[in-house]
Amino acid sequence: MSAQAAVRVLAEAADLPADFPALPSPQEPLSPEGLEAALRAVGATRYHNLHPFHKLLHSGRLNRDQVRAWALNRYCYQSAIPRKDAALMARCDDRELRREWLHRITDHDGFGEDSGGIERWLVLTDGLGLDRAYVVSKEGALPATKFAVEAYVRFVAENTLLEAVASSLTELFAPGIHAERISGMLEHYDFINEKVVAYFRRRLDQAPKDADFALEYVKQHARTAAEQRAVIRALTLKTEVLWAQLDALYLAYVAPGWPAPGAWRPGVAIVGE
Amino acid sequence: MSAQAAVRVLAEAADLPADFPALPSPQEPLSPEGLEAALRAVGATRYHNLHPFHKLLHSGRLNRDQVRAWALNRYCYQSAIPRKDAALMARCDDRELRREWLHRITDHDGFGEDSGGIERWLVLTDGLGLDRAYVVSKEGALPATKFAVEAYVRFVAENTLLEAVASSLTELFAPGIHAERISGMLEHYDFINEKVVAYFRRRLDQAPKDADFALEYVKQHARTAAEQRAVIRALTLKTEVLWAQLDALYLAYVAPGWPAPGAWRPGVAIVGE
Repeated sequence: MSAQAAVRVLAEAADLPADFPALPSPQEPLSPEGLEAALRAVGATRYHNLHPFHKLLHSGRLNRDQVRAWALNRYCYQSAIPRKDAALMARCDDRELRREWLHRITDHDGFGEDSGGIERWLVLTDGLGLDRAYVVSKEGALPATKFAVEAYVRFVAENTLLEAVASSLTELFAPGIHAERISGMLEHYDFINEKVVAYFRRRLDQAPKDADFALEYVKQHARTAAEQRAVIRALTLKTEVLWAQLDALYLAYVAPGWPAPGAWRPGVAIVGE
Repeated sequence: MSAQAAVRVLAEAADLPADFPALPSPQEPLSPEGLEAALRAVGATRYHNLHPFHKLLHSGRLNRDQVRAWALNRYCYQSAIPRKDAALMARCDDRELRREWLHRITDHDGFGEDSGGIERWLVLTDGLGLDRAYVVSKEGALPATKFAVEAYVRFVAENTLLEAVASSLTELFAPGIHAERISGMLEHYDFINEKVVAYFRRRLDQAPKDADFALEYVKQHARTAAEQRAVIRALTLKTEVLWAQLDALYLAYVAPGWPAPGAWRPGVAIVGE
């Protein structure tokens, strides 16, 4: 089987929906609406709301240590977002785009009265009983988590501005997962309360605004077939970054339950118990 | 529990041997022999010969598709080695060291009559019935594999020359695993023969020479406690890169058997069946 034929088989094996939109051909780019449909289809087939780990998390089938492992590892991702956005702005010669993009950094790092999303994430890890200095040190995070997160920061730093913007488009799909997470975790876990889900409540407002802007930017700027393929690939890479983090959590803390040497284990860095 | 106390608990939880050598203290560096013992202890506790996936591979308990998945993914690692070594040489102002290091590139890329280690790896994937263009495209490799491999290349490109050299020291532990692999795979798999294990046979000679040189270099140049901690950390990072690749293979192709969306699945890109 040729590599091309293999790619076709793969597409079929990935259970793509029958109405999966057309991809841009080398000859003919998609319309902006066609491109949006293709980008939304990446989310519908690859966003990490589909991962079994999230289904377990949201339905109350994880124990407290497994939720701790998730929050501890996800901190690596959260805390890298301002570096990612600074990397984007560092190559952006368009003052209007920089002005528009800046709030993504302050949303996470905080500004003035607002302590920011990373602080809200640490309120979550505090609420789970994890030592804050240990979380911030990233000492106990899985190597696979760090590799995936750095792959994302590097992708944004090293590719075109258009691809960097496109890689943020997973936010199109985030409100659904955040809403599901808030209600599911509050309902199912007695160690989760309103205070510790503040991060997700805030993102319910923030993510849609960011996603709308980025989607319009991409639809306006990705006009050639090559540009369109590149932005679809950028969004796909981003879904791989998110998916790989859940794969690693599942293997380490659900089944077979093999945290890599040196990674956090239940009982470590717990305060107040 | 403080972060420091947590790190101590982690060290205990990692089942370090009772005779685990001392680590350099901020006050007092280790002797060169003490440093060698500490580096060898990293291998004894974290090298990927300890990973369950390798135990399955070498004892004949994987099926042909699982061996294919391993060879396909490991190709990403093999094929990145010359880039890693070129990144090291690119920052090396010492002509003698560059002269010494160069053969690591030609060992893998080939030179003159020798087609090189990457070609020998492709003889292995050919022998397993995988389409060569598909393997080389890396299209079907797990995202986690690519993230880990690129983390290694980047580590070498972005850290000190001393740390870059130290990260190669997993070769100290490689001959054991290669010898075990050759005999185990020839004995247990009817689809493995002498021709396809040529890569490992050759590495039995190459790896010890490289490791001896790098070990002497590190023992000679890592004199302060800070340098010694950095080289121990560099070798640890490298073991994390190798370990994460096997974690990902296990989850995707052994249990629960979840290849990430887009990754290779049995039946794809097989020739001659």
